[in-house]
Amino acid sequence: MKKIGIEDMKASHPDGTEGVDFRPLIAKNVNAPNFYLRVFDVAPGGHTPGHAHRWEHEMYVVKGKGKVVLGSREVQIKEGDALLIEPDEDHMFVNSSDALLRLICVIPKPDADR
Amino acid sequence: MKKIGIEDMKASHPDGTEGVDFRPLIAKNVNAPNFYLRVFDVAPGGHTPGHAHRWEHEMYVVKGKGKVVLGSREVQIKEGDALLIEPDEDHMFVNSSDALLRLICVIPKPDADR
Repeated sequence: MKKIGIEDMKASHPDGTEGVDFRPLIAKNVNAPNFYLRVFDVAPGGHTPGHAHRWEHEMYVVKGKGKVVLGSREVQIKEGDALLIEPDEDHMFVNSSDALLRLICVIPKPDADR
Repeated sequence: MKKIGIEDMKASHPDGTEGVDFRPLIAKNVNAPNFYLRVFDVAPGGHTPGHAHRWEHEMYVVKGKGKVVLGSREVQIKEGDALLIEPDEDHMFVNSSDALLRLICVIPKPDADR
């Protein structure tokens, strides 16, 4: 078993994010075989980039609340919600609250890492 | 996007668990394409079965603390820890605390569902 505490990994701030601390806790660092588990900490007012891609996201809201912008549709999310973003679906996560929004986001292992 | 709130799914209690509420939030129910995201709520004193299998687990401790028993080795876990259980590795999760232990556990989509 490999254990990676959130406090053990320095956050990065991917292009297109605003107010986001990103930590790919289970990924290439531990030779994850099939999928990667990453944590996004979104500060109040922060957001991820609006984009779409051919792979799905499976997500879980660990803390806080906010919304997902899916093209012209907005969906409120809160602690305890699980989300399946379908392949090719536009999505942007926004922290519209005044407290931290912490999200788990799981993706298939990128082809580049296979 | 599909959203499944933890409060929207009735828990089950899989064989071999003790004091565990199990909710496969993203799985066959939403035709998840590649992997399944499940939540285990382990009550104080509760545990999952001790077993091994050919697929990995990627896990995240959402709330609480406890331990993983890996054969003769024990590892303490707490909120914010991510865990990679390797294929064929023995593992059992135990809530040795006096508060709820909530775990996310992601597995590859079972062959039976492909």
